[in-house]
Amino acid sequence: MAWTHRHLLGIAELSRDDILHVLDGAERWFDMERGDATHARVLHGRTIVNVFFESSTRTRTSFEVAGKRLGADVVNIALQTSSVTKGETLLDTVRNLEALRADALVLRHAASGAPHFVASATRTSIVNAGDGAHEHPTQALLDAFTMRRSKGRIDGLVVTICGDVLHSRVARSNALLLGALGAEVRLCGPRTLMPRHPEALGPTVKAFERIEQALDGADVVMMLRIQTERLAGATIASTREYARTFGLNTRVLAHAKPDAIVMHPGPINRGVEIDPRVADGEQSVILDQVEAGVAVRMAVLERVITAADAERARA
Amino acid sequence: MAWTHRHLLGIAELSRDDILHVLDGAERWFDMERGDATHARVLHGRTIVNVFFESSTRTRTSFEVAGKRLGADVVNIALQTSSVTKGETLLDTVRNLEALRADALVLRHAASGAPHFVASATRTSIVNAGDGAHEHPTQALLDAFTMRRSKGRIDGLVVTICGDVLHSRVARSNALLLGALGAEVRLCGPRTLMPRHPEALGPTVKAFERIEQALDGADVVMMLRIQTERLAGATIASTREYARTFGLNTRVLAHAKPDAIVMHPGPINRGVEIDPRVADGEQSVILDQVEAGVAVRMAVLERVITAADAERARA
Amino acid sequence: MAWTHRHLLGIAELSRDDILHVLDGAERWFDMERGDATHARVLHGRTIVNVFFESSTRTRTSFEVAGKRLGADVVNIALQTSSVTKGETLLDTVRNLEALRADALVLRHAASGAPHFVASATRTSIVNAGDGAHEHPTQALLDAFTMRRSKGRIDGLVVTICGDVLHSRVARSNALLLGALGAEVRLCGPRTLMPRHPEALGPTVKAFERIEQALDGADVVMMLRIQTERLAGATIASTREYARTFGLNTRVLAHAKPDAIVMHPGPINRGVEIDPRVADGEQSVILDQVEAGVAVRMAVLERVITAADAERARA
Repeated sequence: MAWTHRHLLGIAELSRDDILHVLDGAERWFDMERGDATHARVLHGRTIVNVFFESSTRTRTSFEVAGKRLGADVVNIALQTSSVTKGETLLDTVRNLEALRADALVLRHAASGAPHFVASATRTSIVNAGDGAHEHPTQALLDAFTMRRSKGRIDGLVVTICGDVLHSRVARSNALLLGALGAEVRLCGPRTLMPRHPEALGPTVKAFERIEQALDGADVVMMLRIQTERLAGATIASTREYARTFGLNTRVLAHAKPDAIVMHPGPINRGVEIDPRVADGEQSVILDQVEAGVAVRMAVLERVITAADAERARA
Repeated sequence: MAWTHRHLLGIAELSRDDILHVLDGAERWFDMERGDATHARVLHGRTIVNVFFESSTRTRTSFEVAGKRLGADVVNIALQTSSVTKGETLLDTVRNLEALRADALVLRHAASGAPHFVASATRTSIVNAGDGAHEHPTQALLDAFTMRRSKGRIDGLVVTICGDVLHSRVARSNALLLGALGAEVRLCGPRTLMPRHPEALGPTVKAFERIEQALDGADVVMMLRIQTERLAGATIASTREYARTFGLNTRVLAHAKPDAIVMHPGPINRGVEIDPRVADGEQSVILDQVEAGVAVRMAVLERVITAADAERARA
Repeated sequence: MAWTHRHLLGIAELSRDDILHVLDGAERWFDMERGDATHARVLHGRTIVNVFFESSTRTRTSFEVAGKRLGADVVNIALQTSSVTKGETLLDTVRNLEALRADALVLRHAASGAPHFVASATRTSIVNAGDGAHEHPTQALLDAFTMRRSKGRIDGLVVTICGDVLHSRVARSNALLLGALGAEVRLCGPRTLMPRHPEALGPTVKAFERIEQALDGADVVMMLRIQTERLAGATIASTREYARTFGLNTRVLAHAKPDAIVMHPGPINRGVEIDPRVADGEQSVILDQVEAGVAVRMAVLERVITAADAERARA
C-alpha cells in the first residue's frame, strides 16, 4: 500500500494501513536519530510553516525539529500577535502562506475542524497539530509508536485513558487509532468530563466510573492533562480532590498489569493527575513519547509532501 | 547598468534602471520557484536579521522565506519585547547587529526615515520593510512585478490607488515607482485621508474624489487596507459608510477596463475596502502579489549584499 | 590540556587552562568571521535549543548566530508564554528537550543555580546564558577575549568594574575569571548596590567607594548596566544623581590610564552609567565585545558538544 494523503487532518481519515505506514516510516527515522546520523536531506529546499493559533512550545518545537532534521526550512508563525488581530480570516492567512509556496502548513487552531476547512481550499499540505476538542493525530500516532515499541504490538492491548476525556483531542484521536488497530479502549474520568456517548469513539470503547476498575488488567495507562480551570466549573471541588479520585499513584497503578506502561501527552501536572513517583517511575514512558514524536512527525511531513508532489505530477 | 546600492531604503533613491534591475532579477527567482528548484546557495553562510519594531507576519515571513531560499541564515527579532524596552536606542540596536557581522538588516519601524538614519551609520546593508507613513519599497517592487507580469508592461498603464492614501507607505512607494516607469497614477479616498499635495508624488499623479471617476479606464485597481481605527477620527461615520463610498465591489469595478486587475497589499478587510466577490474574483491578483513578494525580496537581498561585498572589496 | 566539560555552568567550574582553551578556540572563529569564511559545518546536523525564561534579544541572537554559523539547527523557546505557564517544572521542560535529542540547551533563568540544577539531571549539554544574580560565563569569556585582544594579556591588568555590582552576574563571572587569570579587580558602586564581602569574589578583588579612586591606574573600565527600577529603592535619588556620582564621562575616565579601554555588557543607558561621548569614543570597545561574543559562543558550543560526544563514546 502506498501513502496517498496530501494532508494529515485526523485519525478518522486514515485506514489501518495508513497508520502502519506512518509507524513503519517513523521506525526508520527513530533508529537514525538514535544512531547519530541525525540529519537527512529528503525535504531540502522545502518550506514548512508552523501556524499556531494556540501556543504550544512542545508540539511546535517537535515539528520544528522534525522539519529541520529532514533538511527543510521551517518558519514559525504565532498568530495571536499577527495579522489575525487585524481581522484577516483563517483562510486568507492560509492562502497567503500557500502563495509563498510553502510545502506544508502545520496548523494548530482552537476551532474543531479548522484544518479540514482550510485543506479543502489549498494546494499546500495541511498537518493538523491539534484542532479544538477534535483531533490531534500526530499525538495518537506517536502514542501508538511508543506502545508498539514497548509492547511489540497494538492489537489486543488494553489501553485505559483517564482524565478530562470530554475535552481531549488526545483521547479522541487515540480512541480512533487504537480501535482501528484492534486495541480495547477504556475511558475513565469525572462524570462531568466524560463524553455522553463513548461508544461513538469506536466499538471497542468502554466507559468506567472508577479508575481502579478501568485499570484492571490494563497494558497501557494514559493519563490526560487536567486543565485546572475546567475543574472550577465541574462538580469536583479541587485539584486535591481530583488527585485523590482520578490521580495515578503507585497504589492505583497496582490495579493495572505489572508490566503496564504509563503514558501522558504532557505537560504533566505533578501531584494532580499523576504522582511524581509514577511519572518518574520505571513504568513511565512519558519521555519515550516525546522522543517518538520527532520521528513520527518526520514520517508524516515526508509522506504528505511526497503525496502532494505525486498529485501535482499527475495533474 | 550594474546595481550599486548597498541599501534599499526607498523607491525615491532608485533610478528607472535600478527598478528594472530588481524586476528582471526577480523574474529568474520567480521562475525557479515555480520550477521546483526552490533553493539557491548564493547567500549561503550569510546572516540576515529581520528587525521588526512593528509586528507584521506577512512581510516578515516573506523576507524570512526569501532569505532562507537563498541559503542564508535568518534571525528574527521582534523588538517590542526586547532591549528597546530597556531603553536602547535604535542606532545601538543596529550597531550591535552589525557587530554580530550580519550581512543585511531588514528593518520595519514606525518612524519615517528610520532606515535612512541607521543606514548612514552602519556598514550592514539595510532593507526598508516599511517606515512609518513614508516608504515600503519592496511592496512597490512586488506590485510592479505583478503588474508587468500580468499586463506585459508598466509604461502607459493607468493605475488607480484607493483608500487611506495619506497614511499609506504603500501608496507613496507605488506612486514614486509607477511615475518613474511611465504609468499614470490616480489617487482616490476620503478627503480627510488624502494628501494635500498629491502632485508631490510625481508629475503623473492625479487626485479624484469619487472612486467611479478614478476607475474610468483604469488598467490596475489597487485598494489600500483601511485602518478602522483611523475612520473613527475621520469624517466618515463607519466602516459600513466607507464600504459604500470607497469600497470596491463588482458594480464599482465595472468602471475600470474590462481586463483591469485588482490588487491589495493585504491583509484585506473583507467587506470594508473590498468585497469578497472582487477579492476572490477572476480579476484579483492579490495572491500573485504575495508570490511575487518572495521573488522580489530574493532579488533585493541578493543585490544589496553583493553591492556591499563589492564596496568592501574596493575599499 | 583537553577540554572535558560537557556543560558550561559558570566560571567557578573552570580552571585557568579551561578559560584559555575557550579563548584560544574563539580566536580561530573570530579570524574566520573576519575573513569572509563565515560558515562551518562542525555542528551540522546538531540541534541547539535556546531556552530563555528571561527575554534577552542580544544574548539569544548571539547564541543563535553562533550556532547557525557552526552549521547547527537552532530552535528558540521563550518560556514566558509557554507550557511553564501551564505549570510544567523547569526539569520537565529540560527533560523534554533532551528527549527531542537536543545536543545543547542554552539556558537563561531568573533563579541562581538553575543551570547547575538541571545539568545534574540531563545528558544534554547545558550552557548557562545567565542565571539570576549568579553567573553569566560567556559574557565573562567574551570580555576576557576582548581585553586580551586589546591589551595582549590579562595577567597583571587592573580592571575596574563599576555599578550595581551586588545584583550583577556579569560582575561576578568577570571577577572570578579575572582572578583566575591574574588580573587585579576593583569594584565600585553605591554602597547599597555593593556586595558585603567583595573579597569572596577572589583574593585580588578590592572595593572602592569613589569611582575616581577605583579608576586610578586602571587598564580596563567596565561599566555595568544600571537597572533604573533598582535605583528607586536605593539611597540614590535619581538616575541623574547616579550619573553624577557613578557615571563614566570623559572627566572621570581621565583618572584611568590614558590607553584604558572602556567596556559595557550592553544594552547601555546613554547618559546614565555612561556618557555618549565615552560610549562612542576612541577608548570604547563595546562593539568589539559584541563581535567577540559570537566567536566565544561558537568556541563554547563546539567544546561542550564535543565533550559530550566523547563522554558518550567512552560510556
